Amino acid sequence: YLSQPHTVEVIGVSFSAGQPKEGCEVGPYLMIKAGILDQLEKLGWVVECPDALPSYEHLQPDEEEEGKYGLLKNVEYVSRVTEKIHHKLKKAAKKGHLALTLGGDHSIGMATVSGALAAYPDLGVIWVDAHADINTAETTESGNLHGCPVSFLMGIGPKIKAFDWLKPTLKPNKIVYIGLRDVDAGEKKILKEHNIKCFSMHDVDRYGIGKVMEQIYDYLGRKTPIHLSFDVDALDPSVAPSTGTPVRGGLTFREGHYICESIFETGRLVSMDMVEVNPELADDEVARQATVNVNNI
Amino acid sequence: YLSQPHTVEVIGVSFSAGQPKEGCEVGPYLMIKAGILDQLEKLGWVVECPDALPSYEHLQPDEEEEGKYGLLKNVEYVSRVTEKIHHKLKKAAKKGHLALTLGGDHSIGMATVSGALAAYPDLGVIWVDAHADINTAETTESGNLHGCPVSFLMGIGPKIKAFDWLKPTLKPNKIVYIGLRDVDAGEKKILKEHNIKCFSMHDVDRYGIGKVMEQIYDYLGRKTPIHLSFDVDALDPSVAPSTGTPVRGGLTFREGHYICESIFETGRLVSMDMVEVNPELADDEVARQATVNVNNI
Amino acid sequence: YLSQPHTVEVIGVSFSAGQPKEGCEVGPYLMIKAGILDQLEKLGWVVECPDALPSYEHLQPDEEEEGKYGLLKNVEYVSRVTEKIHHKLKKAAKKGHLALTLGGDHSIGMATVSGALAAYPDLGVIWVDAHADINTAETTESGNLHGCPVSFLMGIGPKIKAFDWLKPTLKPNKIVYIGLRDVDAGEKKILKEHNIKCFSMHDVDRYGIGKVMEQIYDYLGRKTPIHLSFDVDALDPSVAPSTGTPVRGGLTFREGHYICESIFETGRLVSMDMVEVNPELADDEVARQATVNVNNI
Ligand SMILES: [Mn+2]
Ligand SMILES: [Mn+2]
Ligand SMILES: [Mn+2]
Ligand SMILES: [Mn+2]
Ligand SMILES: [Mn+2]
Ligand SMILES: [Mn+2]
Repeated sequence: YLSQPHTVEVIGVSFSAGQPKEGCEVGPYLMIKAGILDQLEKLGWVVECPDALPSYEHLQPDEEEEGKYGLLKNVEYVSRVTEKIHHKLKKAAKKGHLALTLGGDHSIGMATVSGALAAYPDLGVIWVDAHADINTAETTESGNLHGCPVSFLMGIGPKIKAFDWLKPTLKPNKIVYIGLRDVDAGEKKILKEHNIKCFSMHDVDRYGIGKVMEQIYDYLGRKTPIHLSFDVDALDPSVAPSTGTPVRGGLTFREGHYICESIFETGRLVSMDMVEVNPELADDEVARQATVNVNNI
Repeated sequence: YLSQPHTVEVIGVSFSAGQPKEGCEVGPYLMIKAGILDQLEKLGWVVECPDALPSYEHLQPDEEEEGKYGLLKNVEYVSRVTEKIHHKLKKAAKKGHLALTLGGDHSIGMATVSGALAAYPDLGVIWVDAHADINTAETTESGNLHGCPVSFLMGIGPKIKAFDWLKPTLKPNKIVYIGLRDVDAGEKKILKEHNIKCFSMHDVDRYGIGKVMEQIYDYLGRKTPIHLSFDVDALDPSVAPSTGTPVRGGLTFREGHYICESIFETGRLVSMDMVEVNPELADDEVARQATVNVNNI
Repeated sequence: YLSQPHTVEVIGVSFSAGQPKEGCEVGPYLMIKAGILDQLEKLGWVVECPDALPSYEHLQPDEEEEGKYGLLKNVEYVSRVTEKIHHKLKKAAKKGHLALTLGGDHSIGMATVSGALAAYPDLGVIWVDAHADINTAETTESGNLHGCPVSFLMGIGPKIKAFDWLKPTLKPNKIVYIGLRDVDAGEKKILKEHNIKCFSMHDVDRYGIGKVMEQIYDYLGRKTPIHLSFDVDALDPSVAPSTGTPVRGGLTFREGHYICESIFETGRLVSMDMVEVNPELADDEVARQATVNVNNI
C-alpha cells in the first residue's frame, strides 16, 4: 500500500486541549528527543518530518468564539486543530507515505482516522485503549473530547456545528478495540447497539494476544489497509505509568509490542498514532513502543 | 440460582487463629473501609451486611477447654467460630443470597464450603490458592488449621471430636484447585489417592487461564452451583505482597480478575470467600479483587 | 537416559573471559552459596560436586601466546578453558550423570554442548537466550566469544586454529532457540541460511509457552536426549536484572520455570548449563531457576 522507497511522515501534535491535564502536549518532543527519528532511519525508512513540533496555540479561540455544546469543552479549539491535522494526514497518506502521528491527546484520533479514511475508503481501524472513547455530547460526564473521537468519526450523537468539516465516514464494522477495561455505561450501550467488535482485557486473557490478532484480521478482512490508534493507557500502569487516565490490569510491554509488530507484519499498516504520552513516562519506553511497528522490516 | 432482587450478604470474619501470624483478622475491616459495600451497591446489588465485623474473642476457650489433637493448634477455638459461620452461611444461601465471606484465615473454608453445601448439595468448589490446604492431623507439620480445611470437609484423616458438627459432605470430585505451587509431600499423596483435579501454575502456563477455566467447567459440570474460595496468596507476591505465606510465581492481577469474572459470568456463583488478606496489603487492591466477581452484571 | 541412582554432577565454571564485564565468574559460587546443592539432595538426587569452584586463571596465556583472530578476544584462553570443561562434561555424561554446569559466561556453551554431543550423538539442544550467540570471527562486532559458541559448535565461519580440539558436531537442525529478541543482522543471515528453528519473544506471545514447548519436542523428535543451555538474560530484566546484556521484553519468572520443568518432565534432559549469572542478581532467584528442572521428580 505504501509507495517506494518506504517513507514515514512524522506528524507531531503538541496539543492537549481534548483533556484537562497538562503534559501530553510534550509527547512529540519527548519521543523525538528519545531518538525515534534516528531509529526509523536505521530501520531503513526514509523519514520526513517537515514540521514535527508545530504550535497550535494561535488557533485557540477567544472565549466568545468558543461554542457552547453541553458539557463539551474546547470544542472550537479541538475542531480547528484536528481539521489542520486531518489535511496533513490525508496528504501524507495520498502520497503513499506511512503517516505516524505523535500526540497529544486522543481527540486527534478524529483527525488521523478521518484523514486516513479520505485516502483509503476501505480502511480498518484498530483502536488500542483502556477506554472506548465513544462518548457523545449526550453521554459524556467529563466533557473532555479525548473521550469522544470514535462517536464523532461515526456520526453518533448530536451534530456539533463546529465539526461540520468532519464527515462521519467510519462504519461501526470497520473498527476493533483491544484493551478495554474502563468503559462508561453510556458507551457500553453504544457499543452494543452498533455491534462494535471489542477485545477487552478479559478477552486478551481468554484467548491470548496471538489469537486476538488473528480474530481481528479475520473480522476486518485480510486485504483492508489498517490504521492503528495506540493510546498508551492501554498498557499496564506498571509499564507506562504516566498517562492521564491509567487503569490497572493493562497490556504488558510484550503484548503492546506484539500488537504493533503483528500489524506491521501484515504489510497493510498505512497510518498510526501514538497518543496520551505524558512527560513523566520514561522516554526510551515511548520511543520503543512508537517504533516497534517497523522492527521487523 | 439466586433470588430476586439479587442480594449479596456480606459475612465478615475477623479471625486468624487458624494460623500463627497476627493481621488477617483485620481483613474484613480493610475491605469494607476500602469501599467494597458501596461498590457492590453501585453494581446493582442489594447489599445486606447485618453484622460485618463481629468479634469472636468471647468464643476463645480457656486453656483447659482447648483439646489436644497432636500438633493441631486452637482446635476447639476454630471449631466454635467456624460452626457459627457455617450456620450464618447456610441461612444466607438458603435465602438465595450470594454469600460473600471476608476472612480471616483460610480455616473458615470449613464453614463456608460446608454451609454452602448444606444449601446446595451438588455444589462444585473452585479453590484458588498457592497451597492445597488438605493436610490432616497426621500430615501437618505446622499444626495450623488454615492448612487443613479441605481434608476436614472431605473427612480425610483422623476424626477430630471437636469438629463433630462438621459433616464431611464434600466429595473429592467436586473440588478443583487453581494456582498450586507449594504443596507438601503428604498433601501430594492425598491429592493423588483421591484423584483430585488440580491446575498448578505449571498448568496455567501450559494452557492459559482461559482454557483452564473451560476445563474446570467441563469437569464440574455445566449446571452445578459454584463456591469460589479465593486465598489471596494465589496471586503473585508482586500483586498481593502482604499475606501470611507468599510464594513466587503466582497468578497475575489479570488472571485473578479473569477467574472471578469468568465464574460470575456462568451465572452459577452462589458463595465466595476472600481470605488471608493482611493489613499491609494495599486496600484498594483487595477491594477490587473481592468485588470483581460482580463487575460484569 | 540417566543411570541409577539418579546422579547430578555439578560443574562450576568460574570464568568470564568470553565477555568484557567482571562478575559472572562469581556465578557458581553464588548459586552454591544460595543452597543449590542442598536443594538437589532434598529432591532425591545423588549430588556429585568433585570440584565446584576450580580456578582457571593458571590457563591464562601470556600476551604473546594469545593468538590474533581478527576482532576475537581471548581466543587461546577461552579455548583452553572450554577444552577442559568439554572433557569433564563428556566424562560425566558417559557415566549417565546429569551434567549441571554453572557458569560463567556463555562461551562455555562450546564445552557443554560438544561434551554432551560426544556422549549422545543424537543430542537435541534447546538454547534459551535473548541472543542467538551465533556470530563468527567475520560477523562479530564486539569480538566477545560468548556471542559465538553456536557458530563454533556448527563449524560456521572461518576456522580458528586455537579451537582445533572442537569438532563441529552440532547440526543446524538439532538446535532450537527460545527467547530471542536482540539478534544482530549478520546472525539473522546465518539463522536464515541454515534454516535454524527460532522461537522469538514474538512467537512466545503468539503461541504461549505451552504450545512453544510442544512444537520444540515435535521438531527435535520425541526420543532425542536434550541439552538445555539457559542464559539468564532470556528472562526479563525485571526478573533477572543483573546480567551482562539485559534486554527488555523477556521471559517471565513463570515462563522460565515452565521451560525447565517441561524439559525435565520429558525424562530426556541429560545436560544443562545456567550461564551469565552476575553477582548482583538475587541469589535465591538464581538457585531456584537452576534447580527448577528437578522440581517435579
Ligand atoms: Mn484513548
Ligand atoms: Mn485511554
Ligand atoms: Mn494459601
Ligand atoms: Mn489457603
Ligand atoms: Mn548467551
Ligand atoms: Mn544472552
